[in-house]
Amino acid sequence: MEYPRGSVQVQDIGEQKLLQILQRFCPPEIIGDDAAVLSTEPDQSLVVTTDVLVDGVHFSEITTSPQDVGWRAAAANLSDLAAMGAFPLGITVGLALPGNVAVSWVEELYQGMTECLQQYKTPIVGGDVVRSPIITLAITAFGQVQPNYTIRRNTAKVGDAIVVTGVHGASAGGLELLLHPELGKNLSESDRIALIKAHQRPQPRLDVLPLLQNILSPHPPAGMDSSDGLADAVVQICRASGVGSVLESTQISLPTAFKHCLTKEQALKYALYGGEDFELVLCLPKEPAHVLVQQLGKGAAIVGTIIEGSTVVLRNQHEKNPDQVLTLSQGFQHFKS
Amino acid sequence: MEYPRGSVQVQDIGEQKLLQILQRFCPPEIIGDDAAVLSTEPDQSLVVTTDVLVDGVHFSEITTSPQDVGWRAAAANLSDLAAMGAFPLGITVGLALPGNVAVSWVEELYQGMTECLQQYKTPIVGGDVVRSPIITLAITAFGQVQPNYTIRRNTAKVGDAIVVTGVHGASAGGLELLLHPELGKNLSESDRIALIKAHQRPQPRLDVLPLLQNILSPHPPAGMDSSDGLADAVVQICRASGVGSVLESTQISLPTAFKHCLTKEQALKYALYGGEDFELVLCLPKEPAHVLVQQLGKGAAIVGTIIEGSTVVLRNQHEKNPDQVLTLSQGFQHFKS
Repeated sequence: MEYPRGSVQVQDIGEQKLLQILQRFCPPEIIGDDAAVLSTEPDQSLVVTTDVLVDGVHFSEITTSPQDVGWRAAAANLSDLAAMGAFPLGITVGLALPGNVAVSWVEELYQGMTECLQQYKTPIVGGDVVRSPIITLAITAFGQVQPNYTIRRNTAKVGDAIVVTGVHGASAGGLELLLHPELGKNLSESDRIALIKAHQRPQPRLDVLPLLQNILSPHPPAGMDSSDGLADAVVQICRASGVGSVLESTQISLPTAFKHCLTKEQALKYALYGGEDFELVLCLPKEPAHVLVQQLGKGAAIVGTIIEGSTVVLRNQHEKNPDQVLTLSQGFQHFKS
Repeated sequence: MEYPRGSVQVQDIGEQKLLQILQRFCPPEIIGDDAAVLSTEPDQSLVVTTDVLVDGVHFSEITTSPQDVGWRAAAANLSDLAAMGAFPLGITVGLALPGNVAVSWVEELYQGMTECLQQYKTPIVGGDVVRSPIITLAITAFGQVQPNYTIRRNTAKVGDAIVVTGVHGASAGGLELLLHPELGKNLSESDRIALIKAHQRPQPRLDVLPLLQNILSPHPPAGMDSSDGLADAVVQICRASGVGSVLESTQISLPTAFKHCLTKEQALKYALYGGEDFELVLCLPKEPAHVLVQQLGKGAAIVGTIIEGSTVVLRNQHEKNPDQVLTLSQGFQHFKS
């Protein structure tokens, strides 16, 4: 990576001083012990999730500023909590980095994380900073959920509607625009910005949880987030629940900008396999599903139905293409890529 | 790193299959969702700590087998919980690694973690496995503590005795023996093995917590663990508590083997600055301190006293050396090393 000349590097100030600088992103009351101490509410389950991001594998200086790396990392972990129905309590941040990284880069990384977290009043409660040849960011988020509201993958039932909480493909579209700006030549400025923002500043759908509690009490939906793509989410839910499903390709909500820069087939591929949209994919009875979609608006839709069997079929009703069977192997196999 | 020829590598089986293999180290009921769900007891605080370990920086193939890397990583995190007075609930494991790492290496890593964790019935409740040019292990441990029993660094009081729960320097001594076996030529086989085991399989001192609760209720001691060395622990506690201390060099418990291979001065240096002994350093009134030391046995000792001021003095009573003032800068500055 290239850093501004003359900037102060991590190795110039040492670990203790770096930790001091980073402490201003943490609430003062939890600093300076071997571990953070937090209060949980009674009768709530603890929910824990962890993600590791590696420079050059999961993010790149070309498409992502340190603020955006931080935002996206925090958003991905909060999205995993949302996918369980859990409200966040805090995150820990493990950061490994070379000594020649600019201190300002690290500050901007924490700034981005904090900006995302502050929307949900979620603190950074601790962490570790160590030396490494490559920048690696390990975030663990924990939250709490009332046991009755826990969203799991393995409870989808035959007859359930499959709901998406928003459009799919926007994040992958935004990344593509950053890598190949010429693809956006037919797009309005606002469409272009919207796609790029979807990639750089995705929103975890914690806002969906209170709606679910109102609609469904006391039965939570089955579901997960679409961080690895919509196809992956539906296949994973069906596999865990021992059911099949039919996805209606024409019902999948796409970014409006896609009409101006992608074929229908390309657009659908982005939506199914692009990933990192961080929407929720929820399976629930048809009536509450309709209520939920109406309340959510903005791209929320019923995109399919849970059926018997074990096959996930993508129905291309209004296309020349035949129906397709979706499997996990079509998704992203990280170690083979 | 060199791996056995013909072994199956991570890239041969892909991420999904690797995760399946690693799931046998996790309790079956928590697998296959976006996050793990755990029960906590009412009226307990949640305690969270995180550590990042990098190949070539924090561990090395020369001195540490994958099992031992796993054991040590788990032990370090459990030790941070013990240092807060907290009993463990679970850990998450974030693993970044190159595709050409042998699958058996990864399994042995998890085997080592599990062996350490099983002593305390602590499960691996989740994690992430990603591709990276360098093996990086990020562990987050969480536990629970009754608020009244939380051990903090900032509550040491003038007059408190400083207790160590065991010998110091053994882990650094064991590492030195692994790097330079010739240094052990005057040691008995059992002394040699004991030092090396102290390095490869350190024990977090969770066993101390029930004793503390019996002795001290409802007032917890001040304290932390000695993962960065005894000197670091005492200086950190004094700084956080706004007090000074006198450490009696002759009272610091050393491994018996040190008599046969180190000068008194060298032995003291290992004890003060070696680190990774994972003992607890506790500050409490003299009477319960004596009871605690007696109950602990095996190297537990009162090594000093908390005094007014802000200076940490090492008193060399029976040595020719003058008294020394200990500061943090004498410790290990990771980014500058």
